[in-house]
Amino acid sequence: MSAMGRLRMALAQVDATVGDLVENGKVIVDRARQAVQAGAQLVVFPEMVLTGYPIEDLALRRSFATAARDEIDVLAGRLAESGCGAALIAVGYLDHDDEGPRNAAALIHDGRVIERYAKHHLPNYGVFDEFRYFVPGSRLPIVRFGGVDIGVLICEDIWREEGPTAELAAAGVDLAIVLNGSPYERAKDDTRGALVARRARELGAPLAYVNLVGAQDELVFDGDSMVVDAQGELLARSPQFVEDLLLLDLDLPQRAEETTGPDAAQIVRTTISADPLPVPEQPLAPPTVPPPLSEEAEVWSALVTGLRDYVAKNNFKTVLLGLSGGIDSAVVAALCVDAVGADRVHGVSMPSVYSSEHSRSDAADLAVRTGLHYQVQPIVDMVRVFVDQLGLTGLAEENVQARCRAVTLMGLSNQYGHLVLATGNKTELAVGYSTIYGDAVGGFAPIKDVPKTFVWRLAEWRNEEAQRRGETLPIPPNSITKPPSAELRPDQMDSDSLPDYPMLDAVLDAYVEGDQGYADLVAAGFDAELVERVVRMVDGAEYKRRQYPPGTKITLRAFGRDRRLPITSRWRERKPQG
Amino acid sequence: MSAMGRLRMALAQVDATVGDLVENGKVIVDRARQAVQAGAQLVVFPEMVLTGYPIEDLALRRSFATAARDEIDVLAGRLAESGCGAALIAVGYLDHDDEGPRNAAALIHDGRVIERYAKHHLPNYGVFDEFRYFVPGSRLPIVRFGGVDIGVLICEDIWREEGPTAELAAAGVDLAIVLNGSPYERAKDDTRGALVARRARELGAPLAYVNLVGAQDELVFDGDSMVVDAQGELLARSPQFVEDLLLLDLDLPQRAEETTGPDAAQIVRTTISADPLPVPEQPLAPPTVPPPLSEEAEVWSALVTGLRDYVAKNNFKTVLLGLSGGIDSAVVAALCVDAVGADRVHGVSMPSVYSSEHSRSDAADLAVRTGLHYQVQPIVDMVRVFVDQLGLTGLAEENVQARCRAVTLMGLSNQYGHLVLATGNKTELAVGYSTIYGDAVGGFAPIKDVPKTFVWRLAEWRNEEAQRRGETLPIPPNSITKPPSAELRPDQMDSDSLPDYPMLDAVLDAYVEGDQGYADLVAAGFDAELVERVVRMVDGAEYKRRQYPPGTKITLRAFGRDRRLPITSRWRERKPQG
Repeated sequence: MSAMGRLRMALAQVDATVGDLVENGKVIVDRARQAVQAGAQLVVFPEMVLTGYPIEDLALRRSFATAARDEIDVLAGRLAESGCGAALIAVGYLDHDDEGPRNAAALIHDGRVIERYAKHHLPNYGVFDEFRYFVPGSRLPIVRFGGVDIGVLICEDIWREEGPTAELAAAGVDLAIVLNGSPYERAKDDTRGALVARRARELGAPLAYVNLVGAQDELVFDGDSMVVDAQGELLARSPQFVEDLLLLDLDLPQRAEETTGPDAAQIVRTTISADPLPVPEQPLAPPTVPPPLSEEAEVWSALVTGLRDYVAKNNFKTVLLGLSGGIDSAVVAALCVDAVGADRVHGVSMPSVYSSEHSRSDAADLAVRTGLHYQVQPIVDMVRVFVDQLGLTGLAEENVQARCRAVTLMGLSNQYGHLVLATGNKTELAVGYSTIYGDAVGGFAPIKDVPKTFVWRLAEWRNEEAQRRGETLPIPPNSITKPPSAELRPDQMDSDSLPDYPMLDAVLDAYVEGDQGYADLVAAGFDAELVERVVRMVDGAEYKRRQYPPGTKITLRAFGRDRRLPITSRWRERKPQG
Repeated sequence: MSAMGRLRMALAQVDATVGDLVENGKVIVDRARQAVQAGAQLVVFPEMVLTGYPIEDLALRRSFATAARDEIDVLAGRLAESGCGAALIAVGYLDHDDEGPRNAAALIHDGRVIERYAKHHLPNYGVFDEFRYFVPGSRLPIVRFGGVDIGVLICEDIWREEGPTAELAAAGVDLAIVLNGSPYERAKDDTRGALVARRARELGAPLAYVNLVGAQDELVFDGDSMVVDAQGELLARSPQFVEDLLLLDLDLPQRAEETTGPDAAQIVRTTISADPLPVPEQPLAPPTVPPPLSEEAEVWSALVTGLRDYVAKNNFKTVLLGLSGGIDSAVVAALCVDAVGADRVHGVSMPSVYSSEHSRSDAADLAVRTGLHYQVQPIVDMVRVFVDQLGLTGLAEENVQARCRAVTLMGLSNQYGHLVLATGNKTELAVGYSTIYGDAVGGFAPIKDVPKTFVWRLAEWRNEEAQRRGETLPIPPNSITKPPSAELRPDQMDSDSLPDYPMLDAVLDAYVEGDQGYADLVAAGFDAELVERVVRMVDGAEYKRRQYPPGTKITLRAFGRDRRLPITSRWRERKPQG
């Protein structure tokens, strides 16, 4: 080994918008310039930052693929014009060659793309379908920049045990950069940090991990970019859920000579510059590691990020939701106010003949506490016409109330351009305690993946947070403490139809998230009758909901399994025999 | 080569139900017994017949995978008990081993599974996502049965040029059987027949191709099972869209000795019986090849099959649809009557203040012609309450009418248990000429993938067919000839908002199905202004519809691309510069 040199690197944790090549290009140039002005010599952007991620079948649209391939060359020119030509800049983008589309990283220097890396390992489970969209790469470039040998990888490449880390380690690199589009999942327990540390130790070199931030449809990217050293020790980390430019000086060995040792077949070596880089003049502030967020704070931030980006990226100015006085709509309203500001939030109380006095007063109280726009539109007259003319009774009568509220919200949406939000929670949707084309209507459902018991936890946490800050509590305490009711018939209570929520959520978590079967659940100590009741409700609701899609499919997947099941299916979970 | 022997084979073209292991098992035993009673020695069932296909994430559910794996052994025993033990029976099923789930074929003989083959090539494009669900196989079994060497393949295996046909050809087989779950696509021009013939020539052996029939969610399987000889000549073929048991005698070489030549590594040889099989006593009727269907007849059959199976497999007894007097609802009503019979079809005319006299009389005429159940439910009073109370105007007022019809249909559905059908066509949905949560509501949308101009062709064809048979024309001639209108405001005509339908459908076909870009379309001779207008409508409608899912996602994919696009996207097709 030769002498050590200093490399100043920047990890650009940015929010990209799917399909917006021009705007994403501007974000990249702005951030690169900011980094270079701070002395950065290496700037790393996340996976697919130029196109946004995931782009799904846009990858297969010829006109888009061509535009994306052209844009990376345009971007290389712009970076040089903006004074970033001397730096090495890694940018994720959509490449395309004779074999098909590639999830790729371009290494840009001096106005052109010096090298391209196509992701080797394509995830195809859960929310990922990359085998549908991309062809895997096989080349493994190592570029020498300022005498430092740098390897580049993309996301899933480091999650596979059989991934290319071993080849890079055998070839020998001084630094690995990993571009990521890694969605937030609840309660990951820092799996990501542990993995990054392990791969760095395997490489025997520092590893820089750069992730997207912001939301795209049902995914939230939490950022959490980081750099670890060759021993796996964390050197610096970006905060979650906000854009960030993480700057760090690394002291790395300088390679004076060409590497001659035999390489694995995939390794492709390129030299940009063999001489040491000038040591940056400006000093850097010492690197920081933000304290981890509490579970409630993390989930709240994810929900706010998801909602804010969905509204902004779909060009909505305002949101509209029904306020029932209950806990779910109160929490969604508080999320809205945090995401887009009270002045862009419109709430409607829509009482029926079965609505209680507190449902109206709690909704009005919420409006006063949060400062959102508030109106009352009784649905009594609309419901009466349908019920009388069609002779509806029982469940059909209950559902008409929820549907008249949906027609009211959509009417106001069409008239004024608001995005309608659905306020249902995961528990009631799982067991079918919801009306298709009724309360399930909307463009986005912020808490559709949050179990009821966690909705309460979020409400309490958000109010405590307000108390800590000396602000008005946004959520009416009565909405938190009163027993939940759908109020679609006289004196109706959730507990008439459902098991107690803590027990219900425990079974749902094991059955749906944990993929436990009937026998597993009973063996785990759940009451057999309760299991049977819940399993029947879930299976029934699941098939009903798939037969009649409720309209809103968009929600945040960070909180649960994304199951794709056939609509038509006779499969039912069965009780163990004997 | 040694002497020739006769093998009687049966191709069981059956309709399986996803998830119903018990019922599918019964179908298999019944058909196998029928085949064996007719002297069959080899009975071949389609891909995944025991589980139904496609099963999507059910493949990943442990309790289901275990049940499916167990059921194949149970089935082997049942087949023997039913007198089918002496035959060789190939059954598609879900296998599962340490590496994960497999799309597999079991070769059953004498009460047990003799050999298993796991599909080598997993399709992962269009409607297929098999990389998500299955692990590919690598073994390639050849079983000797009655002195005949038989190779087994599954569906995609023969569609790939690099598929295992070459290995089987090199090893030498006397017969190949291919189990398929191959969905119907419009205008395939017998690609399937040509491919099967080519593979048989490559193998130098007859090839038996067995396909599922019936519908599963958005897929229709058309059957079309066939046998070709070693020269690729068609020997026999099953009709499309109906269950069938195709029986055929093949004269095949008898192999007296063990094969000793060196095999490719994947080849696994098993001998069930080396001696010639007894020649079946009963003579067979000569094999038949049904004449091809006309394009309209084929599409009509596909639509009827899709609707009938969706209703039956989801346990609905009756269907309900709105009758506007227009062509779309008339064609859907005629499809319903053909699919489930007039007595199970309920139509509702729902006139508003803007409805014309002919909209009511044509709807009533349709009811008389088809014999479906008919009622009139004016929406005037419901609409008035919403419009007056909320102060709705313009598009918001138009949409409320469509939504009051949806609430009416869903109310009747909840009260009486009907499946609501949406009657929109592909053209109006593509350009956004439709109301979300309004006319788009329903559990199934029979003509959602049929362009408007083809809806007219179907109507004319169905009436001509009735004329040929001497039956009442089901579709009112006035519904076919009158100019189309949504009737949501005074004197509204489709032509106020849309280009002429033939031109519109031509652009849509090139833009959406043909994946042509802006420049391609203009270069192809379409008027530039028309292209710009249509492209803007499609992109606008596409994003709007994805932001607010309309509720009904289920339709038949045989008629168009199944694009999965991001909801949040700023990508817009751009006019070529300069």
